[in-house]
Amino acid sequence: MNDPGHNKSATLELLDRVWTQGDISASDSLVAPRYTIFHDPGDPWDGQMLDRSGFKERVRLSRAPFPDQRFAVQHLVAEDRSVVVAWNWSGTHRGEIPGFPASGRNITMSGLTLYSFEHGLMTGHWQCADRLGVYSQLQRNSR
Amino acid sequence: MNDPGHNKSATLELLDRVWTQGDISASDSLVAPRYTIFHDPGDPWDGQMLDRSGFKERVRLSRAPFPDQRFAVQHLVAEDRSVVVAWNWSGTHRGEIPGFPASGRNITMSGLTLYSFEHGLMTGHWQCADRLGVYSQLQRNSR
Repeated sequence: MNDPGHNKSATLELLDRVWTQGDISASDSLVAPRYTIFHDPGDPWDGQMLDRSGFKERVRLSRAPFPDQRFAVQHLVAEDRSVVVAWNWSGTHRGEIPGFPASGRNITMSGLTLYSFEHGLMTGHWQCADRLGVYSQLQRNSR
Repeated sequence: MNDPGHNKSATLELLDRVWTQGDISASDSLVAPRYTIFHDPGDPWDGQMLDRSGFKERVRLSRAPFPDQRFAVQHLVAEDRSVVVAWNWSGTHRGEIPGFPASGRNITMSGLTLYSFEHGLMTGHWQCADRLGVYSQLQRNSR
């Protein structure tokens, strides 16, 4: 099975239900038993292959400093086994990031993620996010 | 005319011929008379609409500090009027960047770019690049 329409729906469900709403166990029906972070510079899991438990742990730890985070999809492009999403992100900085204690300030970010699929399940991603913009905001807040 | 195959070829030609080889005038046959940088955080032209002369000036000024720069395409995904390219980039730092005089060192970067097309010509892009990684390399070199 390789249905770009299904893959798009699965991508939107991951961003909305898992990452935005925090229903992390919903990833079990979206993500393959082995999920590879092919490329994600600055992400602590860059280059790693995760099982489903590791995938959920990554989401849990990544969401912790920004519990009200939300993704807003700007563009969605699918072909063959790939779905690309261009996104804006925002969240309130409520938990510590190494070097930056919780500030209570709103932080914004943007990025693009290319998700790979096999048999309707996500097998990994290739991503770049505007981490320089995030650090500029964090440093401004900590002055 | 809207042919994703043609749009993919045009994208590869822009990255290879214009950005990598520096044949900047070749962009006249690839880029629409109005080109919009919809989103490109950290890029000096972010948010601007450029005519063909402005497009070429942006390429010329962007290439100047890294005259031997080259893009290596990792993924290419096209649908409807959009082409997304995931890329690695590298170049020798031979000209000044504000705050960072030429170091002669090799710099690497990665990113994803979503190009929009109309009638076979590029009308703009939505991009994120790993600028935090670039600044880390530049700061390391300047110590």
